[in-house]
Order: sequence, then structure tokens, then C-alpha cells
Amino acid sequence: MRTDRLEAFSDGVIAILITILVLELRPPHGAELSSLRSLYPVFLTYVLSFVILGIYWNNHHHMLRATERINGAVLWANLHLLFWLSLFPFATGWMGRNHFAKWPTVAYGVVLLCAAIAYFILQNVILAEQGPESPLRTAIGRDLKGKASPLIYASAIGLAFVNRWIAVALYVVVALMWLVPDRRLVRIDETAGG
Amino acid sequence: MRTDRLEAFSDGVIAILITILVLELRPPHGAELSSLRSLYPVFLTYVLSFVILGIYWNNHHHMLRATERINGAVLWANLHLLFWLSLFPFATGWMGRNHFAKWPTVAYGVVLLCAAIAYFILQNVILAEQGPESPLRTAIGRDLKGKASPLIYASAIGLAFVNRWIAVALYVVVALMWLVPDRRLVRIDETAGG
Amino acid sequence: MRTDRLEAFSDGVIAILITILVLELRPPHGAELSSLRSLYPVFLTYVLSFVILGIYWNNHHHMLRATERINGAVLWANLHLLFWLSLFPFATGWMGRNHFAKWPTVAYGVVLLCAAIAYFILQNVILAEQGPESPLRTAIGRDLKGKASPLIYASAIGLAFVNRWIAVALYVVVALMWLVPDRRLVRIDETAGG
Amino acid sequence: MRTDRLEAFSDGVIAILITILVLELRPPHGAELSSLRSLYPVFLTYVLSFVILGIYWNNHHHMLRATERINGAVLWANLHLLFWLSLFPFATGWMGRNHFAKWPTVAYGVVLLCAAIAYFILQNVILAEQGPESPLRTAIGRDLKGKASPLIYASAIGLAFVNRWIAVALYVVVALMWLVPDRRLVRIDETAGG
Repeated sequence: MRTDRLEAFSDGVIAILITILVLELRPPHGAELSSLRSLYPVFLTYVLSFVILGIYWNNHHHMLRATERINGAVLWANLHLLFWLSLFPFATGWMGRNHFAKWPTVAYGVVLLCAAIAYFILQNVILAEQGPESPLRTAIGRDLKGKASPLIYASAIGLAFVNRWIAVALYVVVALMWLVPDRRLVRIDETAGG
Repeated sequence: MRTDRLEAFSDGVIAILITILVLELRPPHGAELSSLRSLYPVFLTYVLSFVILGIYWNNHHHMLRATERINGAVLWANLHLLFWLSLFPFATGWMGRNHFAKWPTVAYGVVLLCAAIAYFILQNVILAEQGPESPLRTAIGRDLKGKASPLIYASAIGLAFVNRWIAVALYVVVALMWLVPDRRLVRIDETAGG
Repeated sequence: MRTDRLEAFSDGVIAILITILVLELRPPHGAELSSLRSLYPVFLTYVLSFVILGIYWNNHHHMLRATERINGAVLWANLHLLFWLSLFPFATGWMGRNHFAKWPTVAYGVVLLCAAIAYFILQNVILAEQGPESPLRTAIGRDLKGKASPLIYASAIGLAFVNRWIAVALYVVVALMWLVPDRRLVRIDETAGG
Repeated sequence: MRTDRLEAFSDGVIAILITILVLELRPPHGAELSSLRSLYPVFLTYVLSFVILGIYWNNHHHMLRATERINGAVLWANLHLLFWLSLFPFATGWMGRNHFAKWPTVAYGVVLLCAAIAYFILQNVILAEQGPESPLRTAIGRDLKGKASPLIYASAIGLAFVNRWIAVALYVVVALMWLVPDRRLVRIDETAGG
């Protein structure tokens, strides 16, 4: 089984999710500059979720380019990832409207954590199919970022009960950590002639 | 006629439907954990419809990979399937908001039944085009699951008038029955070299 | 310039429009069967618009498969067609909510007419690029259906002022007229080896 | 790295944005012709934003066809452009609903300006990857339109405080300036055999 239709479907879902996010950003009723001001928490959560979905698309893109063949389990692991990503508009909207209140911030973290775990599962299902000497295996190496993300998200969820801004800061930290495209997979692309 | 644009269009529609489903899951007004509790029927119906649409995408993917050529009738049989799938957000929203009330649960079953019949028609239109000795024909074999699904849905619709939870249970049973990717078509993919 | 990205973009827009249409079909507030009854005009307009968009996708698909190369003018003629198609959810929603009242029925006809003219323009821009002996030119021949559709729509708009049901009937007539996939272009696909 | 998945993802996002724009154009409550009249500012802003997004799609299409290879920085510069384009429905809705009031008109200009700058950045990131003698570099030449657009947008934002209609007129001027597809890149396509 080739990866093209899986990539197209995932691209479609992520493209729609990244666009549906913006539906939370409703034009305000007033026409004054001040009416924009109340939108800033919604805007900031929009930017954060846009960046995180962009990172997922980016990493997904690199991972599948280094993938030679897939099986039925990969299709389901991929749908599982898309399920958690599909909850981003919900979690983003709840956190943004409530100005980073405690429970919405926790819920956002839970969605981030589940998506990170789903990505980790997808990666392992793909690796199992590729065999031990695959270029993807070599490229991923120790996968420090992939293992650190869920741990940081789990900590953030716990720390949200102490201070919700610590949680928000940790969500931003993970995003920044991934913003640098994964050099290991990029290298594969280059040596494999992309 | 090749299948690529048909696949791309179907992927697009299913990707949008699976994402529009989540629009029913509105962020609650309160910021407390308890405000999430009232969402659980909407969330459960969302999960169920997400899984069922995922199954359709998966089976559609496998079926068209085993298909060599299509004709105009296939285009229309495919649009007919997409029509019934497009009613998923409506039926899901009605059932979720009304906590699995009788008529919404029946309506959901009717949409599931019509989609299952439309898939069966599409499969037969494709088979007719492929000829009697096609790999798809061999792969589908007796098609027990494809024939059982509409029957179970029809029973569920009838039993919803006795007890709506029986209907919901049967909808879940069909989903679980299909969750295992269709081994017969997967085999084709593998022998055909994907 | 090849047609692949033009096809992909058009598929994307039409897939989204066909799906956004269903957003007009809101789940009713009540959970009784009777609450579905008030939805029937919205449902019927949904079915009509779904079928018409399906016809556009189908014909667009066949036309571009018979097209060898495109230029910048084709890109713009195509966007012009997509613009009028993008007004379908608006016109469908207005007509459905108002139970086929006079002005919404007229507005729906105007959108249908403009889309038909835009399709005619797109076809001619493509034909101009292909040259006089192109397979597409031969296939289209006298193009009776393409010329009749705008005339019927224009008549329907006029007759809506006499009786709106005549207009609705004529919209349905054009849809049925096109439901048969264009045999001429299908023939091309077959002789060209698709 | 090839450009195909980047193009598909960008097409998807732009197709969805161009379609989501129309969601701002709500069917009016009344069924009279007069009830359409109050929609004209929303309709005009819709047309303007549709045309501008169409121009971006068109130019993006031509630029990537003249591009031979991309790297990770291009992926991010592209997501940055998509981010600003994703704010079109918000800015369009705010300006349309408020009949081109001062601040919404300014906000629309800011989104246009940021998108134009993001496109400029994307173009330069791609050029840096292609090397000094690339066909894209030759094709773009002095890039008068690309450099004039942000300047005109910036002027429009300033002049909106004098008279908002000057700003609106300048937005239209830039759109008309670009409506002619970029002859330089088209030429490349043709010489490169598309």
C-alpha cells in the first residue's frame, strides 16, 4: 500500500482543522478598535493552535516521506491521531473564550497530550512495518523531542492546578521546541533525494 | 477513466464531513469541569460518527485500490454514497443534542442504513464494470459483512421503538465489526504490489 | 501548464461547497418526528443543490480530462465559475428557509443562470486554447444541453413571477437533463484510453 | 523535497478559506427583494476577498511551478503566509458587517499588508534555495508589483484615517493590478514546457 492517499486525506483533515479554528475568531459587534481588545485571548489561542497544527502537518509530512510502505494498522493509527487533532477547535475555543481559566487550560493540555501520544503510536506502528534497519528508524534515533513532549504536557496539566500560566508557558515551550523542523528527517529526505 | 480524481474528491468530502462533525461539539459556556459533563452524549455520538466515517474512508480506499477502471455510473453511485454520508453531521447532531431520544436515534439509523445500501450499490456498480474474473470480485467473496450491516441497521431501527439503547448498541456492534480492516481487500493490495 | 492543480483546487472548492450546503440543514430543537416535518423544504433544496453541484463536478471532471493544456485565462474563467458556485449555499439557504417564496426562488435561478454562463465561458476559453481540431471540440459538437440550460434558467426566472413552482420545476428539469453523464465526453475518455 | 504535498496542502487551505468567506453572507430573514439590499456591503467585501484569495492562489500556483526544490524554511514561510490568509474571513466579516467603518477597514488593510509581506518573504526564501541563476529569479526580475503592493497597502492604512473610501479604492487598485496573471512566470511555464 502506498502512502499517497493517506497523505492526501491527512492533509485535507489538517487543512480543514487549521481553517475551522479561525471560525472561533468571530468579528466583534462594535466597529471600534477597543472591540478588538476583548478578542486577544481568543487570538492568542488561535495562533498557538495554528502553530501546533502546523508542526503536526510538518512532522507528519517528513515522517511519511521517509516511509516506504504502510499497512492497515497505520491507517487506523493515523485516524486515531486525526481524532485528537480534530478536538483542537473545541479545546482552543473553550480556553480562548474563558481567558485561560483553569479547567479549559487543563482540557487543552489533555488534548495536546493525547495528540502527542497518538503521534508517538503512529510513529511506532510505521517503524514496526519498516523493519529494524529502515532509514526512518535511523533518522529518528533516540527521539528525545518525541519522548519529552508528552512528559512536558503531563507536567503542564498537573501544574495548571498550581498556576494556569505555568501550563500555558509549557505548551508554548513545546511548540517552540518543535518549530525547528526535525533535522534528522530532513537529512533523510536529502540523502534519499527527496 | 482512472480513479484518481474520484478518490481525491471523495477524500475531500469525507475529510470535510469528519471535521464538520466536530462543529456540533460546541465549547460550553461555563469554565467549570461540570460544564463538560452535559456534553457527554454529544461527545459519544461524535466518537461513533467519526469512527463510522473513518471505516467508510478506509473501505472506500481499499475498494478503489483494487479497482482498475471506472465509468460514469460509478461516479454517480459514488455521489449517491457521499450524499448519505453528508447527512451524518445532521443525524449525529440531532441524536447527540437529544440524549439518544427515540426519533433522533431512529433517524440516525436510517442514515446509517441508507449509507450502507449506497455503499453496497457502489460496490456492485464497480464489480459490474470490472468483469466476473476481477481481483475485486475474488477479494470480496461472499461479502458477509457488507450484507449483514444493512440487516443489522434495519433491525436496530425496528428495535429502537422497543428500547433505544438496543439500537445504539447495534450501531456500535456494526462499527466494531468493521473496525478490523477488510483482510480480503488488504490481501489484494499486497499481492498486487500496492 | 498542466491541469492537475486546477483540478485539485476545483475539486477542493466543490467538495467544500457540497458539504457546507448541509450546514443549512440544522438539527431541529424538538426530538419528535413532527419536528422533522418543517425541515422538508430545506431538505428538498439541499437535495437539488447537491445534485446540481454533483453535475458540475462530473462535467468539469470530464471536460478537464479531455483537455490537454491550459493557460492563465483558463485559471480565471475557472475561478469565475467557482465564484458563482460558491453562492449556492447562500441561495439554497434563502430559498429553503422561505419555503420557495418568490424572490428567493428568483435569486436561486439567477445564481444557477450565472453559473451556467460561467461554465459556458470556461468551456469556450478552454476550446480556444485547444485549437479547432481538438478532441474536446469534436466531443462537444453542437452542445445542445450547454446552450439550452441558460435559456431554460432565464425562462424560469421570468416565469417565477407568474408562478414560483414553474420555476422550481424548470430547475429540476435542467438537473434531470444533465444527470445522464455527457456521453460525448465519456466517449472521448474511452477512445483516448482515459 | 518535492513541492507536491506543499501545493496540495496550500490548495486545501486556500480552497477552504475562499469557501468559508461565503459563510459570512448569511441568507436574510425576510423573503423580499429589499432584504437583499442590506447585504450589499457584505457581498462587495466577499467579492473583493474572493478575488484577492484567487490572486494569491494563482500566483502561488505559478511560483511553485517554477520552483524546483524546497526546504524546511519554505514550509514555514508558506505556513506563515497561510496564517495571514486565514485571517481573511475575520477581517472581511468585520468590514462587511460594519459597512466599511474606519477601524474594520484599517484592520482589513493590516491583514492585506501582512499577507503581502508574507508572500514576499516566501518568495525570497524560495529564491534563496534555488540559487542565483534559477529560472524563477530571471522570471521575477525587478518584481515591481510585489514591491508596490505592500507600499500601497501601507499608504491605504494611513489614508483610511483621512477617508476610508480612499483605502477601499486602493485595495481594489492592488487587486486589479494583480488580476492580470503574472506574465513573467507564465512565460517560464511555457518555456519549461509546463
